[in-house]
Amino acid sequence: MSDQSKVLSKDELEAALRKIGAERYHSLHPFHKLLHGGELNKFQVQAWALNRYCYQAAIPRKDAAFMARCTERELRREWIHRIQDHDGDGVEEEGGIERWLALTTGLGINPEMVISTEKALPATRFAVEAYVDYVQKGTMVRAVASSLTELFAPKIHEERISGMLENYDFIDESVMKYFRRRLKQAPRDANFALKYVLEHATTAALQKDALDALTFKCNVLWSQLDALYLAYYSPAMIPPGAFREEDAN
Amino acid sequence: MSDQSKVLSKDELEAALRKIGAERYHSLHPFHKLLHGGELNKFQVQAWALNRYCYQAAIPRKDAAFMARCTERELRREWIHRIQDHDGDGVEEEGGIERWLALTTGLGINPEMVISTEKALPATRFAVEAYVDYVQKGTMVRAVASSLTELFAPKIHEERISGMLENYDFIDESVMKYFRRRLKQAPRDANFALKYVLEHATTAALQKDALDALTFKCNVLWSQLDALYLAYYSPAMIPPGAFREEDAN
Repeated sequence: MSDQSKVLSKDELEAALRKIGAERYHSLHPFHKLLHGGELNKFQVQAWALNRYCYQAAIPRKDAAFMARCTERELRREWIHRIQDHDGDGVEEEGGIERWLALTTGLGINPEMVISTEKALPATRFAVEAYVDYVQKGTMVRAVASSLTELFAPKIHEERISGMLENYDFIDESVMKYFRRRLKQAPRDANFALKYVLEHATTAALQKDALDALTFKCNVLWSQLDALYLAYYSPAMIPPGAFREEDAN
Repeated sequence: MSDQSKVLSKDELEAALRKIGAERYHSLHPFHKLLHGGELNKFQVQAWALNRYCYQAAIPRKDAAFMARCTERELRREWIHRIQDHDGDGVEEEGGIERWLALTTGLGINPEMVISTEKALPATRFAVEAYVDYVQKGTMVRAVASSLTELFAPKIHEERISGMLENYDFIDESVMKYFRRRLKQAPRDANFALKYVLEHATTAALQKDALDALTFKCNVLWSQLDALYLAYYSPAMIPPGAFREEDAN
């Protein structure tokens, strides 16, 4: 990926990371263009939301797995709010997972079915668990850098909010609160992680770790959309046991 | 999946396992029908062989991970030949991975590219690693039962050997030796594993583990073909970084 013999400046490393996003972030995937452009029917949007729930639900486990190997207290102190952002506290803050369930319930899917993840595509679960696994191995730079897709999230969330509200009569503001909230949360996380990576990736090997990790994470997101595209859009080949129209109430 | 309150007889459990195979084994996947029926071009067959290499190459790691938690010496003594079957000894026995490379090389793909697995679909790698991970968790019945897809392998191998030899002028007997050899190896392994599962899955919970494990493993195989179908057949959407026509040769 990068020339392993040369150490990049911070600016060069940041540019190389942003280039990966520009080429591989899942905003470029045809399924997202269909989703945001109003080209999907309600069942297809349900399938997307049900599958994407697996990812949302796994993020606090991913962050706990990261913290389990993090020996720097300062880093843990910063990282812990990611878990809280997604889990909420059950009192004042509902959290990202609850907000995602507001979307799936608003779409008319039984929340127990969503939470069980049993009807999700196996490919979704494999990709998500690969991410949980990834942060447990290799260098800390690699683990932190795998979260850098957040750098590119606000743009896709803005596109999603306006596109879905405009194009689907079964979507209203109340079910889009997950994305509104992430517009504020993601930049904070991304800026911290980027700063960490730029400061700590001081050798060619660590810089390669960072670039590889971001590529890996883009693959995790991309492959989930590939699986949705095949199963629910074209050629609409739903694998055995996965979410079908008769499961959608 | 099964009624958790009822303990099945050995015959009923075997029947339930075979039913999963009959409904979910990847012999039923449209990509295999295309492959065996001569409906793919050489590039598509290359993509299949290159991706499937990831699976082949991971099997000895999977079996070592299994043995790492296996406290019964008798079971390890039986299991170790699976690693040897795939790795060979470099002297008298080339092993399954080497035989798979004879196929990819015979198809004209650079073996270094194949071995690196860098051009494989991310979805392939996620599915394969999910299998390596799976045998490390849960009960031993679950870990053993995840190998039971071998019960259904001989039929697909026979179909593949005759179909591919007949339908593709770039396939000859010399590159099909992997499958010829597996015709003998797979039944031995499958019969042992089936006997183990039938003897040890003596509670409803363990029987559910066995059935779930076989379902999981069918998903591992199926999702690899889903990814190939989308990327290389229809709509032929190759994800960023994966094997492309210009990589072949």
